Amino acid sequence: MALSVRERIVDKTMRLFSRRGYAAVGLNEIVEKSKAPKGSLYHYFPGGKEELAAAAMEHGAGIFLDTLAETLASEGGTAKAIRHFAGRLAGWMEGSRFRDGSPLTAVTVEMAGEAEAVRRACADGYAAWEAAFAVALEGEGLGGERARDLATWIVASMDGATVLARAKADAAPIRVVMTQVAEAVETALNPPRSRAR
Amino acid sequence: MALSVRERIVDKTMRLFSRRGYAAVGLNEIVEKSKAPKGSLYHYFPGGKEELAAAAMEHGAGIFLDTLAETLASEGGTAKAIRHFAGRLAGWMEGSRFRDGSPLTAVTVEMAGEAEAVRRACADGYAAWEAAFAVALEGEGLGGERARDLATWIVASMDGATVLARAKADAAPIRVVMTQVAEAVETALNPPRSRAR
Repeated sequence: MALSVRERIVDKTMRLFSRRGYAAVGLNEIVEKSKAPKGSLYHYFPGGKEELAAAAMEHGAGIFLDTLAETLASEGGTAKAIRHFAGRLAGWMEGSRFRDGSPLTAVTVEMAGEAEAVRRACADGYAAWEAAFAVALEGEGLGGERARDLATWIVASMDGATVLARAKADAAPIRVVMTQVAEAVETALNPPRSRAR
Repeated sequence: MALSVRERIVDKTMRLFSRRGYAAVGLNEIVEKSKAPKGSLYHYFPGGKEELAAAAMEHGAGIFLDTLAETLASEGGTAKAIRHFAGRLAGWMEGSRFRDGSPLTAVTVEMAGEAEAVRRACADGYAAWEAAFAVALEGEGLGGERARDLATWIVASMDGATVLARAKADAAPIRVVMTQVAEAVETALNPPRSRAR
């Protein structure tokens, strides 16, 4: 099904922002690259670039969440899903020669202190990813607070690993970090006897 | 001792970039806010904004590294140092109302794919932080490869936690993530008996 003009604008904005950040990408470039009619941007986003950015963050977080949720549902357990997801993430970033990354990081660090609606869209995106992991961990028997804390750590580790991978132009940080994350999840779900006492 | 003009420019650039990113901050703003004479920027940085950004990243990473190294040296052990450092980081970010964050994140995600010298300065900064943790962990008896992998995870966790804290305008992610990081370090250094076998 073809995307609507609005959907094309939002999707292209998310991809451009995730590669180069908010300030570096102009509205003219967005209109041009999304092949949208001139004037359509302010028609759909009367609040301008900030309103568009909030929509783009919601959209990008949603795509990432869908992939996460699908992986968590199809793999046998959270730790396996993390390993599988890390492999996909590493391959996808390598394929873009480390130009692509988390859809939320760049806009969060540039805009969280500048535009409240944009900050909230980023916060909601991260919260949704955390919730996906927390629900999966609870489903495997981890207590609610412990599951939520571990989920926050998983998301922070993943986000930080993509930043390190971009700095180094190397997927190794994703593999190194997410392997340890998966092991920590296994330990949390199945603690060694001497710790369980 | 008063900072030289060059040092003032580099320091101000680092602070502005870490708050709002690379593209949002113009050279005129940098000259003005660092109270540098007009023309001095191109005198010290003939390569322009990218050369300046590389110097600013090296400077920012160095300040962060000094604080890290000092904390690792003065606290009794890596886990304690991480807890102490996390408290300082959370307090500092709260104090800036979450406008400040890691000096490297914004410029990495905006510029790693755009300017090789900037990317390399960011990569070197992260590598120096990882080395500080790896040396500390090795000093406590952890094997070289295990120490290096865990150090990478610590740095990725810390970086990701600051991004989540900015998105949420809340220091909780730093505390939640770094508490778990400190526990993981304790477990790695002093594994429960049933795992050590």
